Amino acid sequence: MLRFLGIDPGLRYTGWGILESDGNRLRYVADGVIATESSKTVPERLTALHKGLTELFTIYAPHETAIEETYVNRNGDSTLKLGYARGVALLIPALSGVVVAEYGAKAVKKSVVGTGSASKEQVEMMVRRLLPGALIKRADASDALAVAICHAHHRATAKKVLAAMQRG
Amino acid sequence: MLRFLGIDPGLRYTGWGILESDGNRLRYVADGVIATESSKTVPERLTALHKGLTELFTIYAPHETAIEETYVNRNGDSTLKLGYARGVALLIPALSGVVVAEYGAKAVKKSVVGTGSASKEQVEMMVRRLLPGALIKRADASDALAVAICHAHHRATAKKVLAAMQRG
Repeated sequence: MLRFLGIDPGLRYTGWGILESDGNRLRYVADGVIATESSKTVPERLTALHKGLTELFTIYAPHETAIEETYVNRNGDSTLKLGYARGVALLIPALSGVVVAEYGAKAVKKSVVGTGSASKEQVEMMVRRLLPGALIKRADASDALAVAICHAHHRATAKKVLAAMQRG
Repeated sequence: MLRFLGIDPGLRYTGWGILESDGNRLRYVADGVIATESSKTVPERLTALHKGLTELFTIYAPHETAIEETYVNRNGDSTLKLGYARGVALLIPALSGVVVAEYGAKAVKKSVVGTGSASKEQVEMMVRRLLPGALIKRADASDALAVAICHAHHRATAKKVLAAMQRG
């Protein structure tokens, strides 16, 4: 059994979701959102995000982490702020020696819904179906669980391919 | 006496510079560059940056930190990468409870050279003049020392204004 953490980073809301996988079956563990107050300074908000993510590693000890690749915005200031949050989200797992896998939005949608052009609503509906019990109070948590599901599928496929090659 | 750390963050090269100030006089302490290899993954590079900055806090125990405000690039991908490095550079001091002051490029140039339209070369020349002994192997270190000088000046001015108000 492996435990995966999916992260959907943002300075205001960072969604997170934990699931367990034995290769074929997925099991929901937890999900949530780390929110930081926009009235606080950026260093204070990054400290809060650091604290929240570090706690997830302490509590759930995920074996691997997955994060969605970012489509950069036209607005440079928003991109920079997203970069701050994403930088911290990439740093914390690495500090624990945990792999961070990145997946494009299309790969995530394809993995969860079956088509790369699925809507946000379709993704959330499938996440709830695949992971009964998921709370998903905000869409950020659904996106985080979706990238964790995508990682679990890719992991399982890679393992099967490897096994087939070894059988030769 | 207060010790200030100036940081000029970047994913490839992060310049840093330490100086001491008693309000009127500046004293050079150290400067350098934290370089990360572009062949490594982003999480690995952010881990190296985290390690380098954390070591600076351990060795020099700066009282305050200054960082230049960022002019966002047209290239979204570059802005995102700068955001990663800048996020980590804003996080590390905050984790030690150290203030991070931000200054615009014009304010830094005005503080060091006397005019907001000074060239990079003029800034470096003045930094070397104000801080005899500075190594400055790369311009990133000069920029980091420049923002630290700017912070020292603003600190001293604020203190004088406060003193005048209290006398007033």
